[in-house]
Amino acid sequence: MSLVTLIEYADANAEVRAVYDDIMRTRGVDWINNFWKALANDPAQLRRQWETVKQVMAPGALDPLVKEMVYVAVSATNGCEYCTYSHTASARNKGMSDAMLMELMAVVGLANETNRLANGLRVPVDPRFKR
Amino acid sequence: MSLVTLIEYADANAEVRAVYDDIMRTRGVDWINNFWKALANDPAQLRRQWETVKQVMAPGALDPLVKEMVYVAVSATNGCEYCTYSHTASARNKGMSDAMLMELMAVVGLANETNRLANGLRVPVDPRFKR
Amino acid sequence: MSLVTLIEYADANAEVRAVYDDIMRTRGVDWINNFWKALANDPAQLRRQWETVKQVMAPGALDPLVKEMVYVAVSATNGCEYCTYSHTASARNKGMSDAMLMELMAVVGLANETNRLANGLRVPVDPRFKR
Amino acid sequence: MSLVTLIEYADANAEVRAVYDDIMRTRGVDWINNFWKALANDPAQLRRQWETVKQVMAPGALDPLVKEMVYVAVSATNGCEYCTYSHTASARNKGMSDAMLMELMAVVGLANETNRLANGLRVPVDPRFKR
Amino acid sequence: MSLVTLIEYADANAEVRAVYDDIMRTRGVDWINNFWKALANDPAQLRRQWETVKQVMAPGALDPLVKEMVYVAVSATNGCEYCTYSHTASARNKGMSDAMLMELMAVVGLANETNRLANGLRVPVDPRFKR
Amino acid sequence: MSLVTLIEYADANAEVRAVYDDIMRTRGVDWINNFWKALANDPAQLRRQWETVKQVMAPGALDPLVKEMVYVAVSATNGCEYCTYSHTASARNKGMSDAMLMELMAVVGLANETNRLANGLRVPVDPRFKR
Repeated sequence: MSLVTLIEYADANAEVRAVYDDIMRTRGVDWINNFWKALANDPAQLRRQWETVKQVMAPGALDPLVKEMVYVAVSATNGCEYCTYSHTASARNKGMSDAMLMELMAVVGLANETNRLANGLRVPVDPRFKR
Repeated sequence: MSLVTLIEYADANAEVRAVYDDIMRTRGVDWINNFWKALANDPAQLRRQWETVKQVMAPGALDPLVKEMVYVAVSATNGCEYCTYSHTASARNKGMSDAMLMELMAVVGLANETNRLANGLRVPVDPRFKR
Repeated sequence: MSLVTLIEYADANAEVRAVYDDIMRTRGVDWINNFWKALANDPAQLRRQWETVKQVMAPGALDPLVKEMVYVAVSATNGCEYCTYSHTASARNKGMSDAMLMELMAVVGLANETNRLANGLRVPVDPRFKR
Repeated sequence: MSLVTLIEYADANAEVRAVYDDIMRTRGVDWINNFWKALANDPAQLRRQWETVKQVMAPGALDPLVKEMVYVAVSATNGCEYCTYSHTASARNKGMSDAMLMELMAVVGLANETNRLANGLRVPVDPRFKR
Repeated sequence: MSLVTLIEYADANAEVRAVYDDIMRTRGVDWINNFWKALANDPAQLRRQWETVKQVMAPGALDPLVKEMVYVAVSATNGCEYCTYSHTASARNKGMSDAMLMELMAVVGLANETNRLANGLRVPVDPRFKR
Repeated sequence: MSLVTLIEYADANAEVRAVYDDIMRTRGVDWINNFWKALANDPAQLRRQWETVKQVMAPGALDPLVKEMVYVAVSATNGCEYCTYSHTASARNKGMSDAMLMELMAVVGLANETNRLANGLRVPVDPRFKR
């Protein structure tokens, strides 16, 4: 149960509907996922967050699938259940196979392990790494 | 200053030197970075950790550069200074440009933001995301 | 299901009941929430933790509602489901509206985002910020 | 040393200078802190991030000082050195005293403690907290 | 519902079964827990992860029960539900009582609290702590 | 540089000096480390925090050295530089060898790795782990 009401399309005002319409059009889907329905309690925040997601996740210097996998990696590191499910679904839609997901998780696990070894032993940064 | 002695090649025993040699050969470099010098206080751990890194970071279902960028993303999320410097250096060696780094960080920042919005508002996972 | 037995008032010894009574009296409620029932497995820890909460969350240099919102912000950042629910409930009891909760989450999300940008890009602290 | 070049006003293009000018005008200062100089490597990201900060941190349902203190609380929780220094400075500029900072930290510390007690003991959420 | 198929013994290939057999033999149990069934989607990762767990958690300079409690402490800090349940079960099997669990959690909570006080107030490390 | 003044013994009031004296007497040392000098800006918080540390870290169901190592494990996981240095020093004073530190870090690293594998793959908790 969410801490705020999930606002359905039928109950949304014109400002919220405009964002919902753009989400569905941009993604080529016919439904709105719960994340946006929660943000819709603050229409200005909904709009700003959606505009940011649309811009950051668009093709650029990095491939869209790579970006989704980075999103999954961060979400797994932070233990965000919602984001792990939703961005794994997005990554699969963009071509991530089970083998890619398993390999991604191996890297995520390894990075979390060595992050603690480096931090825990207080290893000084090699001067050569600082260009 | 590290919490344990950094073991230089000249001071290393045969078991440690064998790992150091493999690191330099595999990476095509002529020096050992501090992370391995710290782990060398436990030669068995040094060997196991290096074998794991070598296997996980090798080409597979994912591109080696993608893996390095995922490593940077996790390290930035966890605030590991050493790992951020060292894996950014590795990613640059494999072709990451400044534009790619900036875009990577934009995704990392966004994921950390939405992770907290989803967790903080306790948004329930949409059934459609659970296949 | 908790990892330890939740100790109900009827099953509690005199030391635990004294704390339970103080919790209900201080908060003006007639029930004990599960967090305290779990801590009651160690009566000394229950007492110490409750005394700390009572002192730290009392009015002081900061307003009690501000403190509850800070509690929610930290809990959302750490992904603590229990704490997010319980302290959001406390904050609502002290006057937090939905608009305030949404704005609070926007700040929490933004802070988590920029924390990773600053850490990930290893931005040096401006000398002017160090007084 | 930052992972990317810090772009000074003198070296910035027109797009970056326009954001820098708006930052200084909005904040009533005559200098740019390093965070923005790092983001300036991607002018579109600089603009988007600044617009977001400006909107989220503006007065709204919450007091600007409360927002700055929430920012400090999240930054302390995440261990972001840069953000802790910069937002503590901002909060002091908006009126935070040492007594308020000490009390804020007491709440942040307590929340981080009880977050782990609740998560570590897997305390189930009381139904009454779910409205 | 897991993001990948949980691979049962009956459906596993010879490589996976060999690891499953070793897990059951080493632990003296007659079942495989879900963590390994998820990793089995990548048999090489399953084998590597199991070999690592077997080596790291074996008796050495530290007592096996101490190691399990450290595992629980990290899992509680990270909010990993699965790991908290599974390693608490392992620790109980090795002799952890409820009193020990409660005291362990008190230390974990305290450490998480003071970590934020030290990080949040940016307390400089005393030179005497750096040997 | 700390965010608040570090209060030396010579500059402390009677309430702070009483706590400083108790710290030195309890630990059998003749100096105060910076953590307490920072907390001394709020004498009530200094006293409460010291009383808590004294009680939680005293011998009980767990060995004091085990508790210090758990403290180090949590501090390494959270990336707290100050706490890692100070509690490693305490653990060494209580008998932790380099071999024990290296093995402790191996467990910490492993736990952080598998925490993300379990969270990232959303592995469901086995019913047998829930007693």
